Parts: sequence; C-alpha cells; structure tokens
Amino acid sequence: MRIAFLGLGLMGGPMARHVLAGGHALTVWNRSAAKSAPFAERGATVAASPAEAVREAELVILMLENGPIVEAVLFGSGADAAIPPGAVVVDMSSIKPAEAQDHAARLGQRGVRHVDAPVSGGTTAAEGGTLAIMAGGEAEAFALAEPVLRLMGRAVLVGPHGAGQLAKLANQLIVGATIGAVAEALLMAERGGADPAKVREALRGGFAESRILDLHAQRMIDRDFATRGRCVTHLKDLDNALDAAGRMGMAALPYTALTADLYRGLIAADGDPDHSGLLLELERRNPR
Amino acid sequence: MRIAFLGLGLMGGPMARHVLAGGHALTVWNRSAAKSAPFAERGATVAASPAEAVREAELVILMLENGPIVEAVLFGSGADAAIPPGAVVVDMSSIKPAEAQDHAARLGQRGVRHVDAPVSGGTTAAEGGTLAIMAGGEAEAFALAEPVLRLMGRAVLVGPHGAGQLAKLANQLIVGATIGAVAEALLMAERGGADPAKVREALRGGFAESRILDLHAQRMIDRDFATRGRCVTHLKDLDNALDAAGRMGMAALPYTALTADLYRGLIAADGDPDHSGLLLELERRNPR
Repeated sequence: MRIAFLGLGLMGGPMARHVLAGGHALTVWNRSAAKSAPFAERGATVAASPAEAVREAELVILMLENGPIVEAVLFGSGADAAIPPGAVVVDMSSIKPAEAQDHAARLGQRGVRHVDAPVSGGTTAAEGGTLAIMAGGEAEAFALAEPVLRLMGRAVLVGPHGAGQLAKLANQLIVGATIGAVAEALLMAERGGADPAKVREALRGGFAESRILDLHAQRMIDRDFATRGRCVTHLKDLDNALDAAGRMGMAALPYTALTADLYRGLIAADGDPDHSGLLLELERRNPR
Repeated sequence: MRIAFLGLGLMGGPMARHVLAGGHALTVWNRSAAKSAPFAERGATVAASPAEAVREAELVILMLENGPIVEAVLFGSGADAAIPPGAVVVDMSSIKPAEAQDHAARLGQRGVRHVDAPVSGGTTAAEGGTLAIMAGGEAEAFALAEPVLRLMGRAVLVGPHGAGQLAKLANQLIVGATIGAVAEALLMAERGGADPAKVREALRGGFAESRILDLHAQRMIDRDFATRGRCVTHLKDLDNALDAAGRMGMAALPYTALTADLYRGLIAADGDPDHSGLLLELERRNPR
C-alpha cells in the first residue's frame, strides 16, 4: 500500500519503522528534516512538505503533538486538498473528540475518509509494535487501515468518529486515577511501617494487579521521577475528559476531577515530573 | 507439619484443602460442623472446638470473617491457652492492623508467635492456590510458615506485626479506586456514543490494563452485579484504612475517601451488590 506518515517523533518514529518493515511504499514527512534521514536510508521517500507527502497516498497516518498541530499540518499546509479522494486518513495523535469529528467532516466533503486512532503504551510499546490502538470512524475505512495498524499494535474500532479519542480520554482517566490510588496506598503502607517495595511485591497477582502497579509503583519506590509520562500532558487529557463530559451533560466525573486537582498541585510545586510524581503531591498533603 | 486450620468457609475451605493435599497432618475446626465432614473423608482430624484443634499444632491457621470473630475464636474459646508455646499462629483473616498487633502481643506473652497474613484474589485464587498473601510479623516465624503458605499462593513479608493487614487495606484501596475509575471511564465512553465492550477491549494491553479492567469491567458491561465482592465488606476495609491512616496522623487519603463515599451511596440505594456496582452509583450521579 502507498502510505504517507507525518510526524516522526518519539512515538511516530518507531511506529513508522514498523510500517516500513511491513513492506509498504512509505513516504515520510517531519517538521525537522533530520528525523527523516534514517528512513531515506531504509528505502522510504522523504517529502519536503505534508502536501507532497500525501499526494499519491492510499493511507495517510498522522502522529502529532496535539489538535492545533494536526489542524496546521492537515489543513493549514494544503495537505487536505492534495490527498486523493478515496484515501483514508488515520490520525493516531491524541486530540479532542470534537476536533476529530470536525476533521472527519471536513475531509469527508472531499471524499477523504477519516479514522481517529490514538494509542496507549508509550514509547516502549511503540518500539515493540504492541500499542493499544483505540479507533473511531466507519467500519469500511477501519478495515482498510487495520492491517497497517496491526504492524504497530492491536487496534479495536470502538465507535463512530471521535470515539477513539474518547476511549483515549477514558484510558487516561483510568491511568491517572490508578497512579493516584497506588501512590496513596504505598504512602499509607510506608507511614504505617511497612516496606513499600515489599507491599508492591505482595500485592502483585491479586486484584490490585495493574500495569501501573508494575511500572509506576516501581518508579515511586525508586523515587525516580524523571519524566517519561508528562504531568502536563496527562492534565491536558483529564481536562479534555471533563470538557467532553460536560458537553454530554455529565456533571460528575469524581475520579477525573480529583486526579486533575492533584496534578495541578503537583505541577505548581514541582514543574513537570513523571506522572508517577502524584506520590509527591500526596506526601505534601500529608505532612509528617 | 502438624497444622490446625480454623474456618472452612468460601475462602478457608479451598485453602485448607491445599494444605491437606500438601501432605500435612491437618486438624480442622469450623463453627458449623457440616463443612468439616469432607475433610474427615480425606484423612484430616475434625476437632469439636478451637482449643481441641490447636492442642498439638506447630502451626495454627485462621481464616475467619473479621476481627471480633478472630478474637472470640482465638481468645474467647480458650484456644490461646491451648496452643503449644513455640507454635506459630498465622491469621489469614482480614482484620484491623491494630487488632493484629494486639493479638500478636497477647500471644507473645505465652511464647506463641503470630503472623498476620491476609489475602487477595477471592475464591478463584483460593481454589487455584494462587492467592496474593501479605504478611506481617517476625522473619523467623514467617520463614517457618512460608512453605505452607506457598501451598495457597505467593506470600511476601512486608513488615512488622500488623503490616500484612495494612498492606491488605492498601490493596483494597487500590482495588476500590480502580473499580470506580474504570466505571467512570466506561460511563463517559458510553454516553459519548462509544461501545463500552469495545473500549474495554481496545484499552487492554495499554497502560490502563489491570485485573479490574479484565474482570470487573466485564461485569459492568454485562450489567451482572450478582455479588462476588461485597460492597459492605469493601466499605468496611476502606473505613478501616481511613481509621488506620488517621491514627498515623495522615489527613488526606482522597481516593479512599471518594471511593468510600460512592460505596455509601450505592449501599443506601441498592443494598449490597457486587463492588463493580460502583457503576450504578456513578450513573445515578449523572442522570441522563
């Protein structure tokens, strides 16, 4: 398949490599050209602009920072007019559900199909080709994209346009609240004289088992808050969830609101550490 | 090893069967004698009272409902005076950390050692011999009990007397908050037009992965709130966590307090459904 891949950052880079390794005719574009060079060496075409990249594409994949950047690259650069009618745009960036719905509608007017397909799993899963991919859009367009998505992870169509982004917000809500609850649990155990590392080990395999207890609890125990998952990004996602819920008339997302409040306190005091730094905020709220 | 096992209920029954299958000389006691009969058929000795059960034990295992019942069976029945000095009491019941510390101190005066070792994983893990066992006490007593505990699951010594119970409360805090967050996420996704079953499927393998997303999310999707994990028990554990934290001077356990508040609302409206019923309470707080 002729595929254009726009955005070769920490996530997009390894994802595009999996697509290329899958034997597809790949054209790449990245804002800073240096990141495209390794792809040229492996046989990909390097485009000078988004519009040039998408001109002959059957599938256009985006992996960009946020909604406004997707807007600029897709619509502000003239790329939208260059995409062949009938092609499918798969936007794997994490943006607002309402933005994804807007993009789908505008591309649809030109006969270009849209699938929102944000991911979870971080750079480790991007590199391993094991991302959780949450897709929204029409079944036919998803079916066309799915064999390519499968090179990057496991994709599930969860609903209509925007539903993939909504599922990503649901994902972020669970991840944030689980980090907070694990931090609260380890702090309570430690203050009561238990060894947090042993508690983590003891809890594994029981009902408290989670990826967060595996990865993030270890960071808390090591007090290693070097940023892998950004608090600022996570807070943005939680605020987007509260905003999206508000638009649906949902008044009460108490776990989301609590976690957003803790992130706000953490960011005010500590800048932008790893999101497992919620422990620091809970420690602050419980002075010795 | 000569082992006495007191309490053959939904959890204790399968746990005692694993101990018997491990080749130990087992004496069992249960409040209602009917549950002892199958053990007699398999070669265990059935005792008529707790005191009779423990008389020659090197290891005494308790699996009872709560702290007051442990108090009654262990101290109110004269069993404590019948346990040979040097023996180890392993209390696998879920009781308050302060109660476990009290029991350890009182037994210690008679030269009987105490390990608190509550479990997580429910009846499935009890039957499979795959419980997560959180132990508190002295290393030597734990080392003596550990080969027997291993027949029932995986045991980790997390700290001094009471620390196992504290770890269990930490476990319950994480489990409750994760159930709440998963319910909130699925509700938001559903209200936004996504298919909750597909969202659960899409999220699996990402950072939101957990035992709760596996088991409890499925119950929410099936709207199957038949009680496997009781809300009333879970709320009792959360209140015990808040109480224990208060004794340590911890003012803020916000995830625990939020989850306890939701359980209180749920119990007031719906009685005592499965703890995955937190979805019902969140639905009520977000009328359509």
